Amino acid sequence: MTQVLYLVRMDVHLPADLSAAEAEDVKQREKSYSQALQRDGRWRELWRVVGEYANYSVFDVAGNDELHEILSGLPLFPYMAITVIPLAAHPSRIDVPGSGHVHIE
Amino acid sequence: MTQVLYLVRMDVHLPADLSAAEAEDVKQREKSYSQALQRDGRWRELWRVVGEYANYSVFDVAGNDELHEILSGLPLFPYMAITVIPLAAHPSRIDVPGSGHVHIE
Amino acid sequence: MTQVLYLVRMDVHLPADLSAAEAEDVKQREKSYSQALQRDGRWRELWRVVGEYANYSVFDVAGNDELHEILSGLPLFPYMAITVIPLAAHPSRIDVPGSGHVHIE
Amino acid sequence: MTQVLYLVRMDVHLPADLSAAEAEDVKQREKSYSQALQRDGRWRELWRVVGEYANYSVFDVAGNDELHEILSGLPLFPYMAITVIPLAAHPSRIDVPGSGHVHIE
Amino acid sequence: MTQVLYLVRMDVHLPADLSAAEAEDVKQREKSYSQALQRDGRWRELWRVVGEYANYSVFDVAGNDELHEILSGLPLFPYMAITVIPLAAHPSRIDVPGSGHVHIE
Amino acid sequence: MTQVLYLVRMDVHLPADLSAAEAEDVKQREKSYSQALQRDGRWRELWRVVGEYANYSVFDVAGNDELHEILSGLPLFPYMAITVIPLAAHPSRIDVPGSGHVHIE
Amino acid sequence: MTQVLYLVRMDVHLPADLSAAEAEDVKQREKSYSQALQRDGRWRELWRVVGEYANYSVFDVAGNDELHEILSGLPLFPYMAITVIPLAAHPSRIDVPGSGHVHIE
Amino acid sequence: MTQVLYLVRMDVHLPADLSAAEAEDVKQREKSYSQALQRDGRWRELWRVVGEYANYSVFDVAGNDELHEILSGLPLFPYMAITVIPLAAHPSRIDVPGSGHVHIE
Amino acid sequence: MTQVLYLVRMDVHLPADLSAAEAEDVKQREKSYSQALQRDGRWRELWRVVGEYANYSVFDVAGNDELHEILSGLPLFPYMAITVIPLAAHPSRIDVPGSGHVHIE
Amino acid sequence: MTQVLYLVRMDVHLPADLSAAEAEDVKQREKSYSQALQRDGRWRELWRVVGEYANYSVFDVAGNDELHEILSGLPLFPYMAITVIPLAAHPSRIDVPGSGHVHIE
Repeated sequence: MTQVLYLVRMDVHLPADLSAAEAEDVKQREKSYSQALQRDGRWRELWRVVGEYANYSVFDVAGNDELHEILSGLPLFPYMAITVIPLAAHPSRIDVPGSGHVHIE
Repeated sequence: MTQVLYLVRMDVHLPADLSAAEAEDVKQREKSYSQALQRDGRWRELWRVVGEYANYSVFDVAGNDELHEILSGLPLFPYMAITVIPLAAHPSRIDVPGSGHVHIE
Repeated sequence: MTQVLYLVRMDVHLPADLSAAEAEDVKQREKSYSQALQRDGRWRELWRVVGEYANYSVFDVAGNDELHEILSGLPLFPYMAITVIPLAAHPSRIDVPGSGHVHIE
Repeated sequence: MTQVLYLVRMDVHLPADLSAAEAEDVKQREKSYSQALQRDGRWRELWRVVGEYANYSVFDVAGNDELHEILSGLPLFPYMAITVIPLAAHPSRIDVPGSGHVHIE
Repeated sequence: MTQVLYLVRMDVHLPADLSAAEAEDVKQREKSYSQALQRDGRWRELWRVVGEYANYSVFDVAGNDELHEILSGLPLFPYMAITVIPLAAHPSRIDVPGSGHVHIE
Repeated sequence: MTQVLYLVRMDVHLPADLSAAEAEDVKQREKSYSQALQRDGRWRELWRVVGEYANYSVFDVAGNDELHEILSGLPLFPYMAITVIPLAAHPSRIDVPGSGHVHIE
Repeated sequence: MTQVLYLVRMDVHLPADLSAAEAEDVKQREKSYSQALQRDGRWRELWRVVGEYANYSVFDVAGNDELHEILSGLPLFPYMAITVIPLAAHPSRIDVPGSGHVHIE
Repeated sequence: MTQVLYLVRMDVHLPADLSAAEAEDVKQREKSYSQALQRDGRWRELWRVVGEYANYSVFDVAGNDELHEILSGLPLFPYMAITVIPLAAHPSRIDVPGSGHVHIE
Repeated sequence: MTQVLYLVRMDVHLPADLSAAEAEDVKQREKSYSQALQRDGRWRELWRVVGEYANYSVFDVAGNDELHEILSGLPLFPYMAITVIPLAAHPSRIDVPGSGHVHIE
Repeated sequence: MTQVLYLVRMDVHLPADLSAAEAEDVKQREKSYSQALQRDGRWRELWRVVGEYANYSVFDVAGNDELHEILSGLPLFPYMAITVIPLAAHPSRIDVPGSGHVHIE
């Protein structure tokens, strides 16, 4: 049962000397990696930051160690600056009367 | 119909000379205001930042003007520092093949 | 019909090993791309920042997704740091009594 | 005749002990002051920053001295943090082939 | 059983108009609160930052929600700026061959 | 008649792979360019920042467009970070009773 | 003989509870103090920063100790944030072939 | 005998042109170096920062000189940004009634 | 025998409502406190930062705990922002061939 | 005769492609250069910053121009970021009753 939420910002900086083929390959592997985690429910949200090669994501995992394992395994990890913001349930949410579940719907 | 998404961070700084009753009152009005917007679907996510009197929220509105109207109407608005990050659909999301709809499930 | 306005700052950092011909080519394509958007009304303002290889622009688009599509398609996008500031109508403008139209004249 | 353009950001911080009547008065005087300058063409643009008690404005004046005279005369000047960014004509604008006139339409 | 580790920095800013008695009282309650958590093992480390009214602490809790509950319950919470850094097991530690247990001795 | 003053800071970062001959050449051209502008009165002051490859300068030009033309034409422009601070006449200067002339002597 | 130059930025923040009379008094004393130093040649330049209650000044004094004596004696000193940038002669100045004299005209 | 404690943050930035073999070699030497210091008690804590190629460590050494000797001898030292925060005993720790020993258990 | 060196920066911000008598008293006690430590050799250097109510000092003490005891005992401590930079012997000093003694003369 | 004192921080960033022989050569020349200035009394203090390839130094020279001449002549100057803080005599020093001499012993 997953239960710990994190907001994560990832900024991608591809090195200038990466060939187009290498760039395409790492982006394709990143996409597959991300989609597998979206399907199993741990990568809950994924948005592009307007105007930037960056995203904000929400992860729902067992804790810090699992999150680090996921993030450090990202194919683009060597080219990313990552910021992790731990989230907690907010008492004003209409759907979270004390439970660890903090998602609407 | 969802339209335009924003990630918003709100940091609350209550003035030291606000009485306990005034503080309680403004927090209660804030909660009602927030929950009404959660119910009508425009305040889509609401998380507490661990260790801080702050939250990250996701809004789903018609555009910048509607978002400003909502945020500037917050009962706690005079006591908040607010940061707005415009979000766009991410091409790697498993549920967004080009549509404006960017939510899992 | 105007809809959503954004102030955008773009800082250009051309890589040192870009040849003069490549630089000229990408700048020329950038100019054409920009002028097409100026002509169709979505790139409403474009100013140089004095002393810097940077500009401030105002975009008038349907929302965040369209803005990201435009910005990420810029020929200079890989060499730019971009900051997006969402704008709303200001109640003191002489020409905007509540409408979404926020331009003088 | 337009001459020198500036992008200006103003962040308003009203003191906590300003009475509601005083606040209303200074805001009303600010609005009148701003609208007079909009009417004579020197305050060319005025936008609210979404989620903040702040604006971005464009001024079109004779030079630095006139701009400072205008800004330091703002009724809200004592409560504002102001940032001034000098603008120049951008060579890619479709309507500015070398002239000092840098406005679309 | 250890679970999730966090490094936390707390900077204390007592308001100037807090009476000596009030200050003493809140510090005493802070100390008791802290020591109870040290005794049950959740507040694992506590160090003073040299020259500052600040500390670095290590917490060992079930996850983000429990950490926020602890931190927001601190008697000094209204007077603190708090930064939370999620920690994970380091592969070079001599005592952590893959387990969640990350403490020497 | 010149009339607008600016304080400008220039920080030079020569690329590591610039040959000694190329560096010497660009510095020589920079010097000539600067001295021509000093002679015609538009580059009014030029000081080295102690301990840095940087300068503070004062320019006296017709306005933003002329200043940008001058700065972007600097032979070292591609290797510089430039900050422009618009200056206005100060009411306490002994030699500037309201005129646009703001220089002692 | 004066010989050491400094660029100094002063940002003034008058306390909100200073009476109009007190403010006027301290500003008047500041002006007299400044003008005396301008007359004896040690306060060589004085410019307003456009849009801010701030100035950039150039001092020409015997060294650090004299500059500190002057600055800490400013009537507005308790309400100022001051930044000092030591300046040196620039080798490209047309009027400074090695001498300590670094002023045009 | 424990003496002087420091919290140290290390951020690793491997150069893009380091071969995989070189990277593997330096990481292996780093690990051995770190583990020898963990075994002799001077490198007391070592945690990974979630989502980053960085760690927080606690060192327990004779003083500043010994700490610098240890840190500058790290095989990864040329590729690291290091921040050192001197720690002191905290009066609220349950196990440190005035002694220099500041560790629980 | 003292042996650990620190560079310390102290910025003083006296509260606006401190009476002149209280301010004088705390400054006088600060001076006595500082001079006693200068006499016993632990406060080795003390310089004013030009233009600021701030100082840089060098302390020569047994370690972090003693330094914190000294700094937190400063009469002005409640009104200071303090930054501590641990120093180590520099191998290029002409008077420190490996010893812990790092002072010229 | 001591004259003008400065605290200087130097951060060294050797380029990755500098050969070991070149690095050794420039460091050796830096050491000789520094020691000559230490011997003639102008480079009064030199400390390593713990954990960094950086130093804090104190210079005692005739003024800004001499300091810049010294710093810009450092063999490592092209690879350094340098910060200069002008120092003044502190009125609480036990050995500086008004004189320009600000050194203990």
